[in-house]
Amino acid sequence: MDNSEFQLVKMALNLRRKRQWIKLCSVFLVAVVLCSLKYAGVLIFRRSRYIAREGSDVSIRSPTLRFSSENGGTGRYLVREAGHVWPKPRQQVSTADVFVLRRGTFNFTYAPGSQHCEILDLAFERYTEIIFSIGEAATSRRCDADTTCPRELNVLVVSIKEPCEGASPHLDSKENYELTVSREGVKLKADSVWGALRGLETFSQLIYRGEHDLYTVNRTDIQDFPRFPHRGVLLDTSRHFVPVKYILQNLDAMAFNKFNVFHWHIVDDPSFPYESVTFPELSKKGAFHPDTHVYTQKDVRTILEYARLRGIRVMPEFDTPGHTLSWRHGQPGLLTTCYTKSGKHRGAFNPVHEDTYQFMGKLLKELKDVFPDQLVHLGGDEVNFNCWNNHTDIAKFMEKQGFHYYAKLQSYYIQRMIQIVESLGKESAVWEDVICSGSNNDPSFHCQPEGSVPKNTVIQVWKRGNWAGKMAQVTQRGLRTILSACWYLDLISLGEDWPPYYRCDPHAFSGTKAQKDLVLGGEACLWGEFVDWTNLLSRLWPRASVIAERLWSSEDTTDMDDASVRLGEHRCRMVRRGIPAQPLHPSACPFVPV
Amino acid sequence: MDNSEFQLVKMALNLRRKRQWIKLCSVFLVAVVLCSLKYAGVLIFRRSRYIAREGSDVSIRSPTLRFSSENGGTGRYLVREAGHVWPKPRQQVSTADVFVLRRGTFNFTYAPGSQHCEILDLAFERYTEIIFSIGEAATSRRCDADTTCPRELNVLVVSIKEPCEGASPHLDSKENYELTVSREGVKLKADSVWGALRGLETFSQLIYRGEHDLYTVNRTDIQDFPRFPHRGVLLDTSRHFVPVKYILQNLDAMAFNKFNVFHWHIVDDPSFPYESVTFPELSKKGAFHPDTHVYTQKDVRTILEYARLRGIRVMPEFDTPGHTLSWRHGQPGLLTTCYTKSGKHRGAFNPVHEDTYQFMGKLLKELKDVFPDQLVHLGGDEVNFNCWNNHTDIAKFMEKQGFHYYAKLQSYYIQRMIQIVESLGKESAVWEDVICSGSNNDPSFHCQPEGSVPKNTVIQVWKRGNWAGKMAQVTQRGLRTILSACWYLDLISLGEDWPPYYRCDPHAFSGTKAQKDLVLGGEACLWGEFVDWTNLLSRLWPRASVIAERLWSSEDTTDMDDASVRLGEHRCRMVRRGIPAQPLHPSACPFVPV
Repeated sequence: MDNSEFQLVKMALNLRRKRQWIKLCSVFLVAVVLCSLKYAGVLIFRRSRYIAREGSDVSIRSPTLRFSSENGGTGRYLVREAGHVWPKPRQQVSTADVFVLRRGTFNFTYAPGSQHCEILDLAFERYTEIIFSIGEAATSRRCDADTTCPRELNVLVVSIKEPCEGASPHLDSKENYELTVSREGVKLKADSVWGALRGLETFSQLIYRGEHDLYTVNRTDIQDFPRFPHRGVLLDTSRHFVPVKYILQNLDAMAFNKFNVFHWHIVDDPSFPYESVTFPELSKKGAFHPDTHVYTQKDVRTILEYARLRGIRVMPEFDTPGHTLSWRHGQPGLLTTCYTKSGKHRGAFNPVHEDTYQFMGKLLKELKDVFPDQLVHLGGDEVNFNCWNNHTDIAKFMEKQGFHYYAKLQSYYIQRMIQIVESLGKESAVWEDVICSGSNNDPSFHCQPEGSVPKNTVIQVWKRGNWAGKMAQVTQRGLRTILSACWYLDLISLGEDWPPYYRCDPHAFSGTKAQKDLVLGGEACLWGEFVDWTNLLSRLWPRASVIAERLWSSEDTTDMDDASVRLGEHRCRMVRRGIPAQPLHPSACPFVPV
Repeated sequence: MDNSEFQLVKMALNLRRKRQWIKLCSVFLVAVVLCSLKYAGVLIFRRSRYIAREGSDVSIRSPTLRFSSENGGTGRYLVREAGHVWPKPRQQVSTADVFVLRRGTFNFTYAPGSQHCEILDLAFERYTEIIFSIGEAATSRRCDADTTCPRELNVLVVSIKEPCEGASPHLDSKENYELTVSREGVKLKADSVWGALRGLETFSQLIYRGEHDLYTVNRTDIQDFPRFPHRGVLLDTSRHFVPVKYILQNLDAMAFNKFNVFHWHIVDDPSFPYESVTFPELSKKGAFHPDTHVYTQKDVRTILEYARLRGIRVMPEFDTPGHTLSWRHGQPGLLTTCYTKSGKHRGAFNPVHEDTYQFMGKLLKELKDVFPDQLVHLGGDEVNFNCWNNHTDIAKFMEKQGFHYYAKLQSYYIQRMIQIVESLGKESAVWEDVICSGSNNDPSFHCQPEGSVPKNTVIQVWKRGNWAGKMAQVTQRGLRTILSACWYLDLISLGEDWPPYYRCDPHAFSGTKAQKDLVLGGEACLWGEFVDWTNLLSRLWPRASVIAERLWSSEDTTDMDDASVRLGEHRCRMVRRGIPAQPLHPSACPFVPV
């Protein structure tokens, strides 16, 4: 039934261009019937502009596009569709032999003996839509019956070993898969459902509009697995509120790039949009608006489920003790009184009040139940020590504890947070500030000795100044780390700026193999000062794609010319799928929106 | 009938959110009826996603938004709607007295004795839609009948003096208007229809969601007129093809900012998307794709008419003799043979072939008929003189003419182009290169003496190096000028970058009043290397808005704090109207898209 709905709305949108009056009228007649069914409670419509099905999966709607005819073009600067995969698989052998696929006859199914689950069932539907929505021109035309007619493939058979019903992705998820496209059909094998999802994405990218506008795929063998287990994108929903549907669309884009972590920097100084069950006043008084500019528990569940179905973990960040101005409205007494000369509040949490720890204990307990991921990001960056000055209670406490520096006090605070998180059975991620000093771009720095934080703490390195040195020191202390220093995508400039992001390698520091093994991966960060739903997707993509490839593909995937061509194709592929990824240089995708 | 269609599609799109099942089914039933009517040829559907009416006017569809309730918010960082007008009117007196408007009862009409025309009829419809589409929350609720209930205004009466039926805007258009909002109603007086359009825009901006979510307007008197007659936005449709609907949407945004010139840099090196009647091969072989990536004559007419109805001139630019690589495919022999070391063509027109002039004569004749504006932009920038080297025919010609420098040859070429344009009864605009030498950011330069180009030529100053000095020299030679040097909006960087654009004043050079009077205005330029439909609108707006104010408002409108507040409101207003204008700094509009 939902599929009928989808067709219906799609047609309603296309009708003006196509002038398919007969079709239109039939559709409207069908619509009347569907409406009647609705009254009988048979159909489910959702509020999103996306087409939703019962359950929480939501598929994006591709834009309406007009495709360039296959041979009519001059071809100058026109991006060529060739079925290159982004990020590049570990091992791929493709030949010139081609097969074709047709909408309606091509199916996905499970191999005998494979595990089954809803995650894959939904992925089959999603990828059917993605594969067969590459524009009108690429019709499901039958190949003319002549001798050169490519063989038609009818099915992709998936085989997975691990049970997957109700599964959630985690840091140790197996994402390896094997994909074979041959005369015998398409076979996808994976240990886990997460590998199968990656394989389906790869398969969808192999298909291109070939001769006669047929859905074409080359004979291919792929063996693939990720280089790093933590491949993330950070969005900041405090500096600007990002409506749920744009977060979902971004999760789609992430899946198209095999990213597997959404680092949700959900609250910060400007606003507190998370609607807490335990402390509802936090968003009631700290959000830009308590009704419209908040993430309700239902919104959060929608985002978590949408991510889970795509094999994406959601790592929430509740940054303290700094970056907490918006908290003070709903929870008075948390912050020290600290103002700038012009009277603007700039306080941080008061780390000597026992109330602060009790409050955070309750909040973290709630978060443990809301967010299933093993990692909770505690922030800990950019604490303004001046705000701990001139407070008698703080001075007394430090004297009692024998602390001579505010860094010690900060350390004390974060240690206790980490303990709370540990007591809840979770692990903590923190920004580098928690163990390393030194301002941004400052090559001199000092990281605290081993044991300053528990071994299972993850350190996110973000300052550009000598990030390699910090990665070395952090891993020397046996701590796991995530790199973001070279991947701050909120920084923009004229021109094709992706090569430095592509060149940056999280292993590019001096250290042993054991140290390198402690690098979990990295994250593209899109801070929200100048980004909201109007420009988020176009600014992030395809710039984040090169980071996706660095984190997935083999270390020696460094050919810039090759990357440039594939990235151009991948950018157009994302645009075709509804992501307004910005252009890389003067050129044209082989279609225009109508 | 078209209006019924509009409602129909709007509902089809909203239905998922609103769950208005009853309405939905009725609509579909109506649809079946409409379909039948269609078969009888009664209804006109258009291919654009915009809802079109017969004739060429097309209104944009506002996004579906959820508004923050009036008093529920914390108000922190939430942009306040206050009915500030952007660009700031010359004279405005507003009081605290407020009136309210209601959809359905508020109308636009002509004063007795006023001229009538379709331009205004359509503007009345458009502004009804704009004013009363500021979100669901702002319903057309009746004010409760109590003593403090604001008086309701029912009509805006327009009076214009000049006949306007079939009129087109031109450089001397009168855009002055007077607007009065008082107990006696709303009165708008203007000399011409163009002033009336500006006044309607102003009126629409005065209205905000006031107490009880009512459409509210303060008692106001405005006398307004522009500082400069030429206030333009340049779009480049060669480096990336920009589909018609995005050009139209940008024309809307321009009208919201009282811009009145669309400088259409339509062709350049990468592609030739203009479908010429006389030389169809130019786009057939020079466009990214001859079917999908072209502007047909019909497309051009759509754009011209959409612009005309908003009082926006369209100044086409066909840049020669450089920037013409894409021309060579459809018109062989135009360019000199000139290659880079790596074999890339980089030629310019060969200015010594008589064929070149005959070809350009025919093309310019066509353009004269297609584009009604008095100004034709001939380009003339960045000619690569190396491409005139080592050509025997060029060397011979120069010897014969007694030219010692290539600049002389360039001058010869452009002079002849200007003569052709003059012979067609039009005037030419050219880039500064035509009369001034000196590379970008080079403070040393030299402009040719008076008489180098005819007095009616307009010089567009674009190089940042000492633009003020160039403006002085150009106007000293009695030539009119347009400033763009400080307004290249394709240049981007992190942060709130509008203040320098706002500070830049086209009169900020040493010169007499007569010289200053030769400054026609300026243009925001958005070159297309890294811009296409995915990011054009968000990158251009609201950054171009500050240039709009500089060109419209009085010279002393320089208060940055005041501008910042009004610009924030104006940005949200544009977003509300469907323009994805990017955010200025951490904050929130009082609504979210759903």
